[in-house]
Amino acid sequence: MSNTVHERAVVVDGLQINNWSRQILQELRAGGISGVNATCAVWEGPEETLRTIGDWCQLQAQNPDLMTLATSTGDIRQAKVDGRVAVLLGFQNASPFADDYRLVEVFSRLGVRISQLTYNIQNLLGGACYEPVDSGLTRYGRTIVSEMNRVGMLVDLSHVGNRTSLDAIDASAQPVSITHSNPTWYVDSPRNKPDDVIKALVERGGVIGCCLYPNVVGGAQATLTGFCRMVAELCETFGVQHVALGSDCTRDWGQDYVAWLRDGRWRPPDTAHPPTWPDWPGWFQGPADMPRVTEGLLEVGLPEDDVVRILGGNWLDLFDRVFPGAGGADDGPR
Amino acid sequence: MSNTVHERAVVVDGLQINNWSRQILQELRAGGISGVNATCAVWEGPEETLRTIGDWCQLQAQNPDLMTLATSTGDIRQAKVDGRVAVLLGFQNASPFADDYRLVEVFSRLGVRISQLTYNIQNLLGGACYEPVDSGLTRYGRTIVSEMNRVGMLVDLSHVGNRTSLDAIDASAQPVSITHSNPTWYVDSPRNKPDDVIKALVERGGVIGCCLYPNVVGGAQATLTGFCRMVAELCETFGVQHVALGSDCTRDWGQDYVAWLRDGRWRPPDTAHPPTWPDWPGWFQGPADMPRVTEGLLEVGLPEDDVVRILGGNWLDLFDRVFPGAGGADDGPR
Repeated sequence: MSNTVHERAVVVDGLQINNWSRQILQELRAGGISGVNATCAVWEGPEETLRTIGDWCQLQAQNPDLMTLATSTGDIRQAKVDGRVAVLLGFQNASPFADDYRLVEVFSRLGVRISQLTYNIQNLLGGACYEPVDSGLTRYGRTIVSEMNRVGMLVDLSHVGNRTSLDAIDASAQPVSITHSNPTWYVDSPRNKPDDVIKALVERGGVIGCCLYPNVVGGAQATLTGFCRMVAELCETFGVQHVALGSDCTRDWGQDYVAWLRDGRWRPPDTAHPPTWPDWPGWFQGPADMPRVTEGLLEVGLPEDDVVRILGGNWLDLFDRVFPGAGGADDGPR
Repeated sequence: MSNTVHERAVVVDGLQINNWSRQILQELRAGGISGVNATCAVWEGPEETLRTIGDWCQLQAQNPDLMTLATSTGDIRQAKVDGRVAVLLGFQNASPFADDYRLVEVFSRLGVRISQLTYNIQNLLGGACYEPVDSGLTRYGRTIVSEMNRVGMLVDLSHVGNRTSLDAIDASAQPVSITHSNPTWYVDSPRNKPDDVIKALVERGGVIGCCLYPNVVGGAQATLTGFCRMVAELCETFGVQHVALGSDCTRDWGQDYVAWLRDGRWRPPDTAHPPTWPDWPGWFQGPADMPRVTEGLLEVGLPEDDVVRILGGNWLDLFDRVFPGAGGADDGPR
């Protein structure tokens, strides 16, 4: 039964940040994942991000049987038919835009469809989840949100501060996303979201992707049932159409990469206590385990149609509202 | 008498942002200016700033009789003996450091001796004078201040927000500067400073450079006497050793440059109402008019020794405390 539901769904993962390779693409295919928001920038500036997109072009050229660089929900649906993974390029930081709002359109033309506004620390756009003080959405941040609305790029608030998140939800003419976070009532972490932020997001048509990263589920001891009950409660409170998944898979990286994520170039590395990757729950070790989440969601009593929505349908609906060609986005060339 | 005082002083201008050329250097020499903090970045990132420093190397090679790229107060004193202008490279924004704290040392090694933390809008380091909300000094901002202390780069707060300014004064192990602003009680502008900021700066040994830019003196109708009375009152309130000059001269730029200063790349240009340069007071049209300020300062009754301090002696003392080789700065190579 659960396999049937998983196969019926167009499974879309709201965020993964793997060290991408043929092996990782095979893991996604093994997990029945047809679409993924793949992070191609966390701290990188414009030129570094161009090079990373070049890496993606090369990965596609070398693995045409496994992946396609996608820019629309049509590409994702076609990838499911073809048994491939549709990769949506996404940013976890506005660093590729640097100080130049025109780069939003430039990166949109390169296929970037999703961008988080800030990553962990204050930037030119606004405050972030680990910064002690949240400036709110700045004037430059408002310009960027407006440009993202114009070109059809989805705003992501996962690592954004709460005040800036509320400002961005209010400022955005299009619904926005939290691609990979949980509610704070499930696990109280700066990376998770209080109800007022989720409520404001939902009222504007947004979607939250429930996240499997250890730090936001309570560590390796988190249970599948507990996670799935949280998803079900979110659906009950806010409506199933606003709930999805964003695993935050971090496959195949060495310890140097977790240090990069934490410290970037903005502070000296803590060489005495270098950060380490957390252990994941036994029931979710990577993209190949996605069918177990489907099983869990069915086991806590969610209807099959709801699970299909949570697995990907809600992301597809949101993308259709926001991406280029949708009513909200500019009709000009991109 | 006033000429004697002007000639006796080592005149140092806390900030100029001209379209530099042989002609401008001649204007500084005509004004008896021996040292100047010359802006080589406002919005530029690391690579753009490297190229601008390249322009400076070229200007020096073409005008060895008129200028020298300076890195110490010894260079400034020698320039006075030689009848040349000692140019200290300075930033009006932390944009050349981008997100990489290590670039503070890199640019220090290139001779950059002064940097403002933020320019008009919120950035990764903190809030700014024209941003509606001031985040305060961020964690990255604290890292940068600490690096500037270590390598001997002077912190400048002129365009910084008041909350971030107070945080930076508190965070800095070295005295800091306001290179080009006035008190708000003289002209109430976001670019000028309330007494609590000036007081905190002074208590830590800092220096404020009184500024001649039209917007911060009250426009072209501002009088020399009024300006000089303000300088004298600052001296009386806070002690003469904390008061200097920073003209903010903007010589020889077209209208496109004022638009660049205002809007950078962070918002679309206001093509309907493009910004224009303000008119300067008749008594201060550019660097060549600096001797008239000396006359004005003497006329309001400031003692000659105090005027010598205000014209440059206080900047030299502060630079000696902060720049590399001083007790505060790291003794390592740079």
